[in-house]
Amino acid sequence: MLVACSGGADSMALASALAFEAPRLSVRAGAVTVDHGLQDGSALRAAEVVARLGAMRLDPVEAVAVTVGSATRAAHSAPTAGTGGRPAGGGPEAAARDARYAALDAAAERHGAAAVLLGHTRDDQAETVLLGLARGSGTRSLSGMAAVTGATGRYRRPFLQLDRQTARKACLVQSIPVWDDPHNADPAYTRSRLRHEGLPALEKALGKGVVEALARTAQLSRDDADALDGWAADAEQGVRDEAGQLECAKLYALPPAVRRRVLRRAAIAAGSPAGSLFARHIEEVDRLITGWRGQGAINLPGRVEARRQGGRLVIRQG
Amino acid sequence: MLVACSGGADSMALASALAFEAPRLSVRAGAVTVDHGLQDGSALRAAEVVARLGAMRLDPVEAVAVTVGSATRAAHSAPTAGTGGRPAGGGPEAAARDARYAALDAAAERHGAAAVLLGHTRDDQAETVLLGLARGSGTRSLSGMAAVTGATGRYRRPFLQLDRQTARKACLVQSIPVWDDPHNADPAYTRSRLRHEGLPALEKALGKGVVEALARTAQLSRDDADALDGWAADAEQGVRDEAGQLECAKLYALPPAVRRRVLRRAAIAAGSPAGSLFARHIEEVDRLITGWRGQGAINLPGRVEARRQGGRLVIRQG
Repeated sequence: MLVACSGGADSMALASALAFEAPRLSVRAGAVTVDHGLQDGSALRAAEVVARLGAMRLDPVEAVAVTVGSATRAAHSAPTAGTGGRPAGGGPEAAARDARYAALDAAAERHGAAAVLLGHTRDDQAETVLLGLARGSGTRSLSGMAAVTGATGRYRRPFLQLDRQTARKACLVQSIPVWDDPHNADPAYTRSRLRHEGLPALEKALGKGVVEALARTAQLSRDDADALDGWAADAEQGVRDEAGQLECAKLYALPPAVRRRVLRRAAIAAGSPAGSLFARHIEEVDRLITGWRGQGAINLPGRVEARRQGGRLVIRQG
Repeated sequence: MLVACSGGADSMALASALAFEAPRLSVRAGAVTVDHGLQDGSALRAAEVVARLGAMRLDPVEAVAVTVGSATRAAHSAPTAGTGGRPAGGGPEAAARDARYAALDAAAERHGAAAVLLGHTRDDQAETVLLGLARGSGTRSLSGMAAVTGATGRYRRPFLQLDRQTARKACLVQSIPVWDDPHNADPAYTRSRLRHEGLPALEKALGKGVVEALARTAQLSRDDADALDGWAADAEQGVRDEAGQLECAKLYALPPAVRRRVLRRAAIAAGSPAGSLFARHIEEVDRLITGWRGQGAINLPGRVEARRQGGRLVIRQG
């Protein structure tokens, strides 16, 4: 088992918990810290983190350097929610995340790790829900991070129900030195602004239970989205004619929430990239079913078009 | 058709729009302003609003005085989200709202109005979604206000997709004097804190599209909640045995989102008041199905208890 450790309080607390539990469970436990190379002295810091992790008797412990790309360094201005529904957590944060997960995947393969533990806390979860809320793309985008992710279920988040304060306290009482990533306090980053300004203001307005409520929203939304996705997958079979075409009358009879998911599935199957397909696209396609007045083809991302033709909805790449 | 008018910009803009459209549509249009009697001089203000509405050639126009109760006046401190999930819009705001709707119902009956128009804007909708988010009770609580409500579909919100700024501008360009309710700026009220501190901070962190994203979330969440409620209503039939008892094995086979809704329906049917039944209650009942380890009866609001007994889930009032 590997713990991914930035050197911050959350992941240092997790590393220490793993180091404590692993021998009791006869689990071999190591740690990886990723050096993104985005700040001066990051290699030195990574070496410090490695030393601290080694002192916990985790083994193996390694620092992995990744290259996030100079474009990312330059694109420092923060993305905004916007009206187009572009992911608010994109840009440099997304590029760094992609590089990090690629490095963690490689480390897990190299060491034959069954799982990689991540230190995300309930507070991170709350922030992720708010970032999803800013996209305005519905229940799935409110479902935050899952406790287990990755194609093989490699990534685990055992602290997802624990608050950040508890992780910090765990480091404090064990005298574990922690490193505060200046990015976390940099107002150029969306998540940082959310953490230091957005969430505190929400708590002031709505009460201290907001973080917990957001985390609970994540879990409930995830379950709701899963159930509806399952329904849509089943429903899709039933609304196709013998030639496999989508029948408008049958689509019309579905609940809107299910119909929109069927349309989304069909658009993605036709080649529209899921990440570029927003709620407003699907709404427009839906109006071919619910507000038909002879409108023309709807253009979707990935050169896909949707048109109504003789009682059938035809979605295909042009 | 009646417009409910506080004298504020949103409802004055709506009154003016109704006064403009009604003769063109041959609709008889009047207005009602409710005097909550919570501030000195409120009767005088109501008379002013009546005069302004009359000047728009709305007819009938009337002021209706309601009594919100002295307890409400005193209970001025704002409710918070809390960990128990109590509605953040409760307390004095809820009492005033109940009194207002009762008066509007009576006015609609008295004048034989087919509909009562309300001036809620997209900004109000965004605030309502955040209030629901603070409850952390899932998709239904994120669905904000519906465009049409009331048992008979009496209440309509034609401005629900319009931003507040547009309503204000409409009053400005028509030189319609508007009245700013000091409650709207009073930080003792949850909604006011949200409007003046919470939402602006969120916009600063996430970008200007937040209000639109929240409003879109409301619509998507409403459709999702409707679909899942429908599914749960259907599923409930299938999980009962011949004696009408809930079968644990069949409940277990349902998707969690549907099972929780079936359990909620059963608890309400057994006499548990919907407004006091929180996500954490249902989670505990759910563990009788998914995490059975011989635990005892679960107490629910309204002296209802849920227990597992011989493969059946028994939910009844004690």
